[in-house]
Amino acid sequence: MALNHIIMQSDNCDPDRPAHPGIFPTSEAGKSGHKPAERSVDFPVSVVLPAGGTGERTGLLTPKQFCSFLGRPLISYTVQAFERVSWIQNIVVVVAKESMDLMTDIIQHYQHRKVRVVPGGSTRHRSICNGVMALGGEGEGEAAAADRPKVVIIHDAVRPFVEEDFLYKIAMAAKEQGAAGAIRPLVSTVIATTVEGYLDHSLERAKYRASEMPQGFTYDVIYQAYQKCTESDFEFGTECLHLALQYCGTNAKLIQGPPTLWKVTYKRDLAAAESIIKDTLSQSACIVTGRSAQAVTLADALQKAVGALNMELEVIPDLMGENASYLLKEWNFIQVSVNCSSLSEVEALLRDLEAENRALLHPVVVIWVYLGCQDEPSIRGSRVEPSGIIELASAAKLQNLLLYGIQLHHSKDTECWERSVLKVAEITSALIRDRSPALVGQLLQA
Amino acid sequence: MALNHIIMQSDNCDPDRPAHPGIFPTSEAGKSGHKPAERSVDFPVSVVLPAGGTGERTGLLTPKQFCSFLGRPLISYTVQAFERVSWIQNIVVVVAKESMDLMTDIIQHYQHRKVRVVPGGSTRHRSICNGVMALGGEGEGEAAAADRPKVVIIHDAVRPFVEEDFLYKIAMAAKEQGAAGAIRPLVSTVIATTVEGYLDHSLERAKYRASEMPQGFTYDVIYQAYQKCTESDFEFGTECLHLALQYCGTNAKLIQGPPTLWKVTYKRDLAAAESIIKDTLSQSACIVTGRSAQAVTLADALQKAVGALNMELEVIPDLMGENASYLLKEWNFIQVSVNCSSLSEVEALLRDLEAENRALLHPVVVIWVYLGCQDEPSIRGSRVEPSGIIELASAAKLQNLLLYGIQLHHSKDTECWERSVLKVAEITSALIRDRSPALVGQLLQA
Repeated sequence: MALNHIIMQSDNCDPDRPAHPGIFPTSEAGKSGHKPAERSVDFPVSVVLPAGGTGERTGLLTPKQFCSFLGRPLISYTVQAFERVSWIQNIVVVVAKESMDLMTDIIQHYQHRKVRVVPGGSTRHRSICNGVMALGGEGEGEAAAADRPKVVIIHDAVRPFVEEDFLYKIAMAAKEQGAAGAIRPLVSTVIATTVEGYLDHSLERAKYRASEMPQGFTYDVIYQAYQKCTESDFEFGTECLHLALQYCGTNAKLIQGPPTLWKVTYKRDLAAAESIIKDTLSQSACIVTGRSAQAVTLADALQKAVGALNMELEVIPDLMGENASYLLKEWNFIQVSVNCSSLSEVEALLRDLEAENRALLHPVVVIWVYLGCQDEPSIRGSRVEPSGIIELASAAKLQNLLLYGIQLHHSKDTECWERSVLKVAEITSALIRDRSPALVGQLLQA
Repeated sequence: MALNHIIMQSDNCDPDRPAHPGIFPTSEAGKSGHKPAERSVDFPVSVVLPAGGTGERTGLLTPKQFCSFLGRPLISYTVQAFERVSWIQNIVVVVAKESMDLMTDIIQHYQHRKVRVVPGGSTRHRSICNGVMALGGEGEGEAAAADRPKVVIIHDAVRPFVEEDFLYKIAMAAKEQGAAGAIRPLVSTVIATTVEGYLDHSLERAKYRASEMPQGFTYDVIYQAYQKCTESDFEFGTECLHLALQYCGTNAKLIQGPPTLWKVTYKRDLAAAESIIKDTLSQSACIVTGRSAQAVTLADALQKAVGALNMELEVIPDLMGENASYLLKEWNFIQVSVNCSSLSEVEALLRDLEAENRALLHPVVVIWVYLGCQDEPSIRGSRVEPSGIIELASAAKLQNLLLYGIQLHHSKDTECWERSVLKVAEITSALIRDRSPALVGQLLQA
């Protein structure tokens, strides 16, 4: 086709995926060479996450914060983004009364620590205020004051991709200035309308910014702001920075955040969020070869081929000794079997992953690649019966482990062999990217 | 699992997919019962699509408008959204000089009509101005004036989901008022910053709106605005409504548009756009049973099962007579074969689709469901050889036809049979939704 040069993956376009994915503990975020030096915060920092939206305003069946991404509710991703930051001491999630049980279930199921659930109020400010009050030690004494955080970070439950680096900037600026907030450039021109619905005037875009989250405050500033503000503020206001300015005279420091700070608002944002999560989970895989020279040759060829598809492949003989660490950090595994249609190696891998509870937060992909040989007595005889892998995959799926199979035959015809390897790479890359539960247990042909 | 009630598809959440998908001719947009009465526009309307962005500002390798979605550049979707509207007479696409050939190739390849390509200027306003000037008849005479449109609609190349209904509102308001523009509520609070980067004040959100596209103008208003505006406007301005107000005294009528009008800006927006397109293409499928009673029974069961997955299934015996119309409007076909592992029926279907050039604009999914019977001499003997479907799928893929196979066996055990049917439904739904080119030719097991 003449248009090949324009037929490109959208992946080639501007990435706004997090450089250090907020959905992972920092230690798992891929190449450590790019990791910024950890910066210490020597004062107590707490987080308030208002998650009280009932979805009524947008007519949702489910509030966005409870919508599932790869089987896990959005709020859990956001909680995790804060939990992984060592200098954040506790997280108060404020939810509608009717969601208290659900939120408690989520915290238990995904084994979140540092988290307390607090009932929300009838408006956003009332909910945030409840969260802030829940952070203050009881009473007025010194002991109570000692329990209070120095800085409170307020964030939205529906902005799951916040990074430690940016939280650090907000916390430091809040401590210094009393208040700090994330901003982004405006995407659209902002206009003022007449009451009749006509253009009154347009604002000069360069002078204004969109106010986003997270925002940070010293405990004293945010506490005072909520003590002094009016019923009308509680009822109609939305902007904490405004209260800090009006009631404490604090001009917040504004810091430009990355585009990934955006707020999941419309249905299209759900697809966008899922895509960012999938991208992050499909950056690398680990291929286990055993001792077979043929398997190593295949693995090396695959490494090159999936590399061209923007995925890094780590080739290892087994998961023993030092290599066992992959069980703690990798989200995708490929097990190569040569001339042996037994699934025992894959079974062992699945057992190891299950023992580590590896798939608690994200589904883990396991691909069994079966390499048959041309010089076997009969090609047909070497064909694997699909029933074994189907059963194994059904059981693994209950543990959030997604098992797929790919079968290929060794060929002495170089061209034919290279085509097969390329096919395995394409299928592998698609399976890892899509993480489709409907296709587990399938034995695909390369 | 105790959390089953929160594990839901994000599809259950607020749909912001177009009610009448802009990516299809209206006649193909599903149930005609929901189609609004066509409203006539009795004056000439033209469109200017500035598509001159080079992606430099965002550091893209490819400008967004040329990024591919299911193999087709975004700009082609946007052009199609206007082309399908009967009362729009012509479309001027303004692109950077270095993209003229690419844009011409796109128009030829996707067989767009009504479209002219014009070279852009160094800024957004210069490009739009070039487009508007290209619409004016040459010279000053009456003949020249007769060529000019009454109303010019200006839209962004990177907002592909614009609907006929909304274009109608803009065109009518523009004719009446001289200018009209789409608006959306602000998602974030807008704040003014001091030069030092501190909060100056925040705007009252309710009084302001985001100015979006499309915008409409009478030819006279937009022509005069560009004649009178200054070099500084050309250099730094972005908002056409502002020029109409400042130089022609025209207060534009503002009309709230649907959320799908949003501008594809960040990488996450590419994923969101792709998801909207895929959703729209996977609303329904057509299942062809032939005359076999077993096939009809399977089809009826599948209809119910995929219905529960939010996909409509039309059961038909063949594609002859009236049913041939499905070849012109359906994006997904399922061909059932009973006890006959020959691919001849599927081959015929692929030939028909190819003859209609059906997959010109979107990849068409064809799923071959092979139903084997338990009482055949040997289950193993009834297994289909995968090589036939692999070759057929490779050839079909070159025509943008994505062929997959699913094999299931009839069972007299009701529970076992129902499980198989459910599995076929799940796989079918996933294949249609994902449209994965990497998995074509695979014979999956249900």
